[in-house]
Amino acid sequence: MKHLLTTSELEIKEINKILDDAQCFLNGGTWTPEQKVFVANLFFENSTRTKCSFEVAERRLGLDIIPFEVSTSSVSKGESLYDTVKTLEAIGVHAVVIRHSQDRYFDELTGRSGVSILNAGDGCGHHPTQSLLDLLTIKQEFGSFEGLKVAIIGDIAHSRVARSNADALVRLGAKVVFSGPKEWFNEELLENGMYEDVDTAVETADAVMLLRIQHERHESKANQTAEEYHQAYGLTEERERIMKPNSIIMHPAPVNRGVEIADCLVECERSRIFKQMQNGVYIRMAVLKRSIEHIEGGANHVNINQKWPVAY
Amino acid sequence: MKHLLTTSELEIKEINKILDDAQCFLNGGTWTPEQKVFVANLFFENSTRTKCSFEVAERRLGLDIIPFEVSTSSVSKGESLYDTVKTLEAIGVHAVVIRHSQDRYFDELTGRSGVSILNAGDGCGHHPTQSLLDLLTIKQEFGSFEGLKVAIIGDIAHSRVARSNADALVRLGAKVVFSGPKEWFNEELLENGMYEDVDTAVETADAVMLLRIQHERHESKANQTAEEYHQAYGLTEERERIMKPNSIIMHPAPVNRGVEIADCLVECERSRIFKQMQNGVYIRMAVLKRSIEHIEGGANHVNINQKWPVAY
Amino acid sequence: MKHLLTTSELEIKEINKILDDAQCFLNGGTWTPEQKVFVANLFFENSTRTKCSFEVAERRLGLDIIPFEVSTSSVSKGESLYDTVKTLEAIGVHAVVIRHSQDRYFDELTGRSGVSILNAGDGCGHHPTQSLLDLLTIKQEFGSFEGLKVAIIGDIAHSRVARSNADALVRLGAKVVFSGPKEWFNEELLENGMYEDVDTAVETADAVMLLRIQHERHESKANQTAEEYHQAYGLTEERERIMKPNSIIMHPAPVNRGVEIADCLVECERSRIFKQMQNGVYIRMAVLKRSIEHIEGGANHVNINQKWPVAY
Repeated sequence: MKHLLTTSELEIKEINKILDDAQCFLNGGTWTPEQKVFVANLFFENSTRTKCSFEVAERRLGLDIIPFEVSTSSVSKGESLYDTVKTLEAIGVHAVVIRHSQDRYFDELTGRSGVSILNAGDGCGHHPTQSLLDLLTIKQEFGSFEGLKVAIIGDIAHSRVARSNADALVRLGAKVVFSGPKEWFNEELLENGMYEDVDTAVETADAVMLLRIQHERHESKANQTAEEYHQAYGLTEERERIMKPNSIIMHPAPVNRGVEIADCLVECERSRIFKQMQNGVYIRMAVLKRSIEHIEGGANHVNINQKWPVAY
Repeated sequence: MKHLLTTSELEIKEINKILDDAQCFLNGGTWTPEQKVFVANLFFENSTRTKCSFEVAERRLGLDIIPFEVSTSSVSKGESLYDTVKTLEAIGVHAVVIRHSQDRYFDELTGRSGVSILNAGDGCGHHPTQSLLDLLTIKQEFGSFEGLKVAIIGDIAHSRVARSNADALVRLGAKVVFSGPKEWFNEELLENGMYEDVDTAVETADAVMLLRIQHERHESKANQTAEEYHQAYGLTEERERIMKPNSIIMHPAPVNRGVEIADCLVECERSRIFKQMQNGVYIRMAVLKRSIEHIEGGANHVNINQKWPVAY
Repeated sequence: MKHLLTTSELEIKEINKILDDAQCFLNGGTWTPEQKVFVANLFFENSTRTKCSFEVAERRLGLDIIPFEVSTSSVSKGESLYDTVKTLEAIGVHAVVIRHSQDRYFDELTGRSGVSILNAGDGCGHHPTQSLLDLLTIKQEFGSFEGLKVAIIGDIAHSRVARSNADALVRLGAKVVFSGPKEWFNEELLENGMYEDVDTAVETADAVMLLRIQHERHESKANQTAEEYHQAYGLTEERERIMKPNSIIMHPAPVNRGVEIADCLVECERSRIFKQMQNGVYIRMAVLKRSIEHIEGGANHVNINQKWPVAY
């Protein structure tokens, strides 16, 4: 099996291969495994975008999807994640996509099961497919990452997106700055970028990446209303006006409209928010292909359905 | 995109086209879109019949269905219906079937997204596929609507079925009367039919259409038991005996057995209740085809998988 | 339709046919119905193994699966199981797989609907596919059942597995003994086997079948901790050492690790626990085929997709 756990563990050439494959799918390329391949999507946390996006990607690849609802599974009888994954393996599932509230939940799985694990978000840890789709969106816009400045603004302390993205962007040659409430900035982030005040960040960045206030992940700041946050750290209409001419707005969504970003900017010309979602499907096709190819076999393996690569 | 929102907005010729297409499917006709078409079923209210019926119809047409459970989606993080639908559009969903407790929920969607909306029930508003399957059931029985008398009996104030059906039936040439607790009759209904006492209605109608007491939609009448309701307004065995020889019994279900209708009449010879459900699948195939054909394209579009129409 | 309700009602030759078909599938045999066949999985109790296993089996046979979630169905509006099944029948579902907390829930369904019922567990009653997969696992190991001794240990009073298995094993020529807390042994079980103390049972059995403590089905024995149960009746590492050389360990799962069985034994060499799960898929393919063949028709029926039997 071949896992996708964190962006940090992907080498630059692997990242580039995934981005290329995704772009190839976006341009109409197709790929289907030779044999029946079963996958299951285990979402222990709520999701629309990531889950539905994986579901579309899986169907586009012709995979067979075994439905799994946490609330009606044996997890509610106390079965562990390890035993759940081993069970799915036993009944013939080749790959599982998992979102779980526990940081690095996958450490208890890798090396102990033959199933490919695709991480769709672990606690406040990582969210590699979100990072990869962000990278693809930036690459489509600017051609390369060299010399770009990306501002990551908002709930950086609790964001698996901030963590995953910053590391990859820096390795790819971009400069990253963080902004938002200063108490959410911490030492660990320094490794990849400095803190910058929000106005400077917005004014100088090529990509302004806003993060969702994750009400479900931290104590609400009772003394700060949504409107106050918006004025202090959000992308207001005023701030949008000081952005560089070709700079773009990004957000992993779901968006709290009027908080991280003014309602009317969500679908404005600079916004790539819905394009990010589109790209998500192709990124997920690429990482599923990457894991399944590995399942399918060795060097002598001939895939009669292989329609890959296509000319484009 | 081509929406299906209310029966009222469908012209008579559109209704007839849908009924014809549904009958064609029922007689063994098949139709499959040329390209992969993705749909999602968003049921914000519980359902067995309507949801499963759409699921069967979608599979019969070879569509790809993206599972969506409200309770495990980002709706539970506060994401709006609009943003949910825009997200599904971004990841490649072409049509969404929606049931929602809010009247005219679709007003915030149409014109702002490229996805086809198929209304599977909005609040106390409309339920067009239920109306259409009722119309098909009546047409199969009597050949036409001209001169028929249809009695709609029960919870008419809260029924989206009453509203949708009465309008279409009157336009198609039938006469509609309403019966049930008089306090549930209101001015608005007068547009399409008069109130009639339940015994006269049952005795003179060609189709007796009973409505479900929607406990979930109004304050229970604490002083009236189910048995009292049954005696006062239900289709008792006694009332069934005074029905016209060829008249039929209809109910959108789920049935409260022994309340709207005597238990033993649910599957009696006059009952078309399960036939209505059968017809529902073909109606949903027809309206899905109507929305998807529109997606697929213009006048020059040649559908190589087009097996439509069949000789029958 | 052809139901699968309890193991007891299956004749020996039917059991052997199912085991043969399952083994045939395991060896690579395939079978697909000629027409589109719709199934629905109705799980009124939580499940990972059984539900996912049926889902894999159904997809391997090329069936169309209509998703059904109890919590979002009309069951929550009070619709009965009978009306739910009749509804599914009306919309074109051919077979339903049901797990329900009520013993013999199927008595109100059989003979009143044309749908094939496959029992995936009824209350404390039966669980025929679990029994059949247990039988297949034993047969693979020992070639036949004649003269084998099987020890069923644990929560025998509340176990549908104990009930279903003991009857079939005895009819197939094996000897069954029961062990565990003596207060959970009852008269009814005597029909198929005696009570034996746990050490003797473990020492002399060819197959040691441990049952899950079903916390959700009986009052917890407040004065007995999990560790106490493990020492008194569980398969400890000490007890495993006195097992016969070729004897095997079985458990229907989910396993309470460290209670019914020592954590480290779950995946030990003697354990067939995950193999049981593997076999479950093939058993379910076999029983689905059995029900669907019956749907598909009479003696003159020619199945053009029939790839059955394969040489093996």
